[in-house]
Amino acid sequence: MRYLYRSIALLALGISAPALAQATAPVTATSPNGSIVVEVKTVEDGRLAYTVTRKGKPILAPSRLGFLFTDAEKIDRSLAITGTERADKDETWQQPWGEWRQIRNQYRELTVHVAETQRNKRRFDVRFRIYDDGVGFRYEVPAQAQLARANIAEELTEFAFASDGTAWWKPAFLWNREEYLYNKTPLSALGTADTPVTIKLEDGTHVALHEAALVDYSGMAVARSGGTTLRAALTPGAGAAKVVKNGAWTTPWRTLIVADDAAGIYSSHLMLNLNEPNKLGDVSWFKPGKFAGVWWNMIKGEWSWARGPKHGATTANVKRYIDFAAANGIPNVLVEGWNVGWDGDWFGNGWAMDFAQPTEDFDAGVLAAYAKKKGVQLVGHHETGGAASHYENQFDKAFKFAADHNITVVKTGYVTDAGQIERVDADGTKYREWHEGQWMSNHFVRVAEAAAKYKVAFDSHEPIKGTGLHRTYPNWVSREGSRGMEYNSWAGKNPPEHEANLVFTRMLEGPMDFTPGVLSLTGENGSAILSTEAKQLALYVVLYSPVVMAADTPENYARHMDTFKFIRDVPTDWEDTRVLNGEVGDYVTIARQVRGGKDWYIGGITDEEARSVSFDLSFLKPGVTYTAEIYRDGDDADYRTDKRHSVAIEKRVLRSTDKLSLRMAPGGGFAIRLKAGK
Amino acid sequence: MRYLYRSIALLALGISAPALAQATAPVTATSPNGSIVVEVKTVEDGRLAYTVTRKGKPILAPSRLGFLFTDAEKIDRSLAITGTERADKDETWQQPWGEWRQIRNQYRELTVHVAETQRNKRRFDVRFRIYDDGVGFRYEVPAQAQLARANIAEELTEFAFASDGTAWWKPAFLWNREEYLYNKTPLSALGTADTPVTIKLEDGTHVALHEAALVDYSGMAVARSGGTTLRAALTPGAGAAKVVKNGAWTTPWRTLIVADDAAGIYSSHLMLNLNEPNKLGDVSWFKPGKFAGVWWNMIKGEWSWARGPKHGATTANVKRYIDFAAANGIPNVLVEGWNVGWDGDWFGNGWAMDFAQPTEDFDAGVLAAYAKKKGVQLVGHHETGGAASHYENQFDKAFKFAADHNITVVKTGYVTDAGQIERVDADGTKYREWHEGQWMSNHFVRVAEAAAKYKVAFDSHEPIKGTGLHRTYPNWVSREGSRGMEYNSWAGKNPPEHEANLVFTRMLEGPMDFTPGVLSLTGENGSAILSTEAKQLALYVVLYSPVVMAADTPENYARHMDTFKFIRDVPTDWEDTRVLNGEVGDYVTIARQVRGGKDWYIGGITDEEARSVSFDLSFLKPGVTYTAEIYRDGDDADYRTDKRHSVAIEKRVLRSTDKLSLRMAPGGGFAIRLKAGK
Repeated sequence: MRYLYRSIALLALGISAPALAQATAPVTATSPNGSIVVEVKTVEDGRLAYTVTRKGKPILAPSRLGFLFTDAEKIDRSLAITGTERADKDETWQQPWGEWRQIRNQYRELTVHVAETQRNKRRFDVRFRIYDDGVGFRYEVPAQAQLARANIAEELTEFAFASDGTAWWKPAFLWNREEYLYNKTPLSALGTADTPVTIKLEDGTHVALHEAALVDYSGMAVARSGGTTLRAALTPGAGAAKVVKNGAWTTPWRTLIVADDAAGIYSSHLMLNLNEPNKLGDVSWFKPGKFAGVWWNMIKGEWSWARGPKHGATTANVKRYIDFAAANGIPNVLVEGWNVGWDGDWFGNGWAMDFAQPTEDFDAGVLAAYAKKKGVQLVGHHETGGAASHYENQFDKAFKFAADHNITVVKTGYVTDAGQIERVDADGTKYREWHEGQWMSNHFVRVAEAAAKYKVAFDSHEPIKGTGLHRTYPNWVSREGSRGMEYNSWAGKNPPEHEANLVFTRMLEGPMDFTPGVLSLTGENGSAILSTEAKQLALYVVLYSPVVMAADTPENYARHMDTFKFIRDVPTDWEDTRVLNGEVGDYVTIARQVRGGKDWYIGGITDEEARSVSFDLSFLKPGVTYTAEIYRDGDDADYRTDKRHSVAIEKRVLRSTDKLSLRMAPGGGFAIRLKAGK
Repeated sequence: MRYLYRSIALLALGISAPALAQATAPVTATSPNGSIVVEVKTVEDGRLAYTVTRKGKPILAPSRLGFLFTDAEKIDRSLAITGTERADKDETWQQPWGEWRQIRNQYRELTVHVAETQRNKRRFDVRFRIYDDGVGFRYEVPAQAQLARANIAEELTEFAFASDGTAWWKPAFLWNREEYLYNKTPLSALGTADTPVTIKLEDGTHVALHEAALVDYSGMAVARSGGTTLRAALTPGAGAAKVVKNGAWTTPWRTLIVADDAAGIYSSHLMLNLNEPNKLGDVSWFKPGKFAGVWWNMIKGEWSWARGPKHGATTANVKRYIDFAAANGIPNVLVEGWNVGWDGDWFGNGWAMDFAQPTEDFDAGVLAAYAKKKGVQLVGHHETGGAASHYENQFDKAFKFAADHNITVVKTGYVTDAGQIERVDADGTKYREWHEGQWMSNHFVRVAEAAAKYKVAFDSHEPIKGTGLHRTYPNWVSREGSRGMEYNSWAGKNPPEHEANLVFTRMLEGPMDFTPGVLSLTGENGSAILSTEAKQLALYVVLYSPVVMAADTPENYARHMDTFKFIRDVPTDWEDTRVLNGEVGDYVTIARQVRGGKDWYIGGITDEEARSVSFDLSFLKPGVTYTAEIYRDGDDADYRTDKRHSVAIEKRVLRSTDKLSLRMAPGGGFAIRLKAGK
């Protein structure tokens, strides 16, 4: 209405609308190979709009930029582009651990200087980095008197998709945080979604919408305004504004990976490249590896976290797990329920948790020494129950305790509903924060910094979304979220398509501590997990994490020693990764080369449909002979029947010139170890 | 996760989940004729859920209730029903003006007492009023130490529709406030919507979801969580919480009208019945009536609101409009741009507006007297440009000025984008509020109270949604919103289905100052309005308001005196209203009886499709002969061509035993005056 009233009112006064709108000539930049083009311009009434085109086809139609404030006029109209700057980059850097060792960072950068032409005359920049496989952009706001303190009510960024398509997305702002199954709907039926959102447009082009470097800002969900236009929907704060900024500030990078297919989406390094380089220096004290754990029996309700006759975290139990780990070359043992604080009503109420105080039946010193003698380390556990300030108040105590007990990895948890994180400031004021809010984005960085002081890495459960900060803080080694294996224990199990959804959505965020490998395929009350046994092995290749659990119990593994061999063999750190095929939510095959070695591993999974896949092995080193140990679904395997345990284990000799064809059962998969010969 | 962890952890400790969940036996209540059944119970983990069933078919599956706070634990789990109270009501009351004079209020009431069983032990009630055509419910929270101040981050109310269907809805929280066209999508593709949302379920049952008595609370939009479940999404505040409450408090009523068809939805009095009775006492000083106005020429860009050579609000212009009004029995003349404050950049910046200071070329005293002599009153205009506090600061001055100039109706405006209302508290703190937020819900009540002191009624444009408060404050006589006639002047015109959408959505909120009757069917730059001429007449019957504009200019009406006659004749206050037929977004026929008279008026409209409708006249008084003046589309009428002006005017004699069949052109309609004989 404002625009319309304004135009016609000024029309009557003889001022033409175009003159008033101060349309500026659009500015354009392309990716290094020219395939992706970004255009930025002002449209009617001085609104800023950006578009994204790929190979000549529009991906994003003109999409808005701006901010709403709680106490000042919004930044939205009467904007002008006052200048631009350009830069190119082409560099290669190395990850201390990860799916690829070498990462190439090649982009063309366009920085657009923008200013309001009237009233407040505020200024800001929008910086675009354009890659051959996508675009990232962020706002950069300099310190200025008219915006000394920005109380951001909403970010007005739009993603106005130019066509419809299929979207895979999780609902945002619901009580169970980010632990929802993925919806698959038309893009034009999306509600409000967490990111990543993965989209297959009508012409087959794949897009993944997400953000990078989420620090000191609240997590961005996206809400559909109408049609195929999405708008940013920031996570609420507990103060007036969703985000509060003082002086100069930037937003996280809003990212769109664009590729021809699902494999191309997965292979992009855009998110990592937009993050700040490693701030921690040498992190060689962190060793990627597998872990067993006193955990699955609690998830099945057979042991308790709390003290009592069924307490899991007893010295005796843990010694048995250490023995099992040592016997099977598994370097770590997680223990949950080891500390004081689990006895009462800890759910969303973690104020009794003391991360330096073991229970009387858990002798930390004895166990740390016993483990060390056997070449095993304990994995610590800090379950906050959502009492995040209480955790911060004991950072030093908690991480020192870990360091003193030869613990270099700690699993953390925030088990409380969305919007229930308990924050208490120094002045005693209480707030209820969101796991994805600005305060928590800073909390996690404080965790990383506190842990790093003691050379401790952490694996955060019930976390904020991953946005590549593991590049900057490479002790932030993994995250859970997104309904991992534990959901397969309880009623309402993950469906067979879940992992094939995760690969092309959740896994774009970075490592996931999915906790695979429940070879017994049995959850609570003897309920069946909706998977075949071979698929459990495949997950060690398909779902990446530098710390990976062998989640089942020693007793159960003892009954599956043939398939357990793959778990014993598979490494957790990689030189290179290739996505050989895949469709979002349907199937995927991933091949990975061992870091510091010549072996390759391949994993393939399918959803509820049986599927045959064929792929070549051209990624193998030519001239080398590989002995392949293939674990695949038996011909009668089926996740719905007791034949879910039917596995065929075969050996073959393979070379780079070979092709492989494999059939996967419903809910199935395959796992292959390729041992390099000469 | 919390629920799941909790269940299994307690399972391990030997406490059964059902015992813990404290499931209570469901409580049930029905509507007076038993067709609608409401059930309230607790489900797993002590969550509260309500269901709605009609004629044995589920409308709402178990839907949650609760609140999220910014600084305290949410109210969501560990709830128990501690008691119930029941009451029945059957009364009749009268509207001082409206579509029906007599309103029957018949319901069965169930009040459910709820308490948290642990930790905070907070208490609240949920009160349900169950009508034969729907349900209303609200929360009632008593004063209690554990909730002395409620900072509501979100209301956790759900509307979990049991089946899919078609939904007509407008997007919420976008920049142009509530002025969007209606989307028609599957319910399962709804994004985030303002209310009313009107739904036609798969089996044909119609539901309208809305709220009643929105006072001291923020307006509720609804967001789709997934599938066909909608959840409340409250309008943001500018402070920490969306809603702030002290001591005892209630929410507005959440309402669901449920009927077999669209006509049944329209005919419900549920919203009015849930509002508090008239607080203003005698309002006979307010007379429903039509108004002409110095306005359309500004909307077409030919005159200006601001002073200058094209200023519309000059003494000479207004005298001409008064002459025109008097000559045609139109009792009111609106004047926009009459006051100081329009000259600068007033858009979203109304600080220069002075509602007691006319411009030099507008002689208020002379014009008021001139009008009075001719039996006409001026309609005032308070355009705030969103500077709501500035308006409040001049309430007495502004309404006294109105009263001193024989003005009993004032049109108000809040032309500024969503989230840009300027509030300034007494201590000087500035806030940017939303038109539908808690602060504005109170602002509008303050307007009503301030105006009533001076016996002034108001018609609010760019308003908060209507929720029946015109029952409590019957000087709040109309509202705009929802893209009225002015959108037909500008580019991006309302499509022909717009009014057929409005009747079954927007019009459920109460009167709309649509400003119909542009018989020239011409907007800015000579552009054609997407309507036939007969449809413009029909709108006087189909779109209800006690104050209705004859929006075109006197010069244009002079060229359409034959059809203008209907506008001259049609009244604006009714004894009774009957919806004879209709489908949401397609067509509708409405019949109304004149209040204090025997005549009836019928109006019918269609969308872009030609349509024939047949209906009987059994609502007429038996034995009476009516002379019908029928204005219908000519046989070649079509909104897309210059035949849009083709009208057939016929006279017929009709009785209650007759049937009528009429054909409507594309974008067309018909209007009928039935003059009662003996």
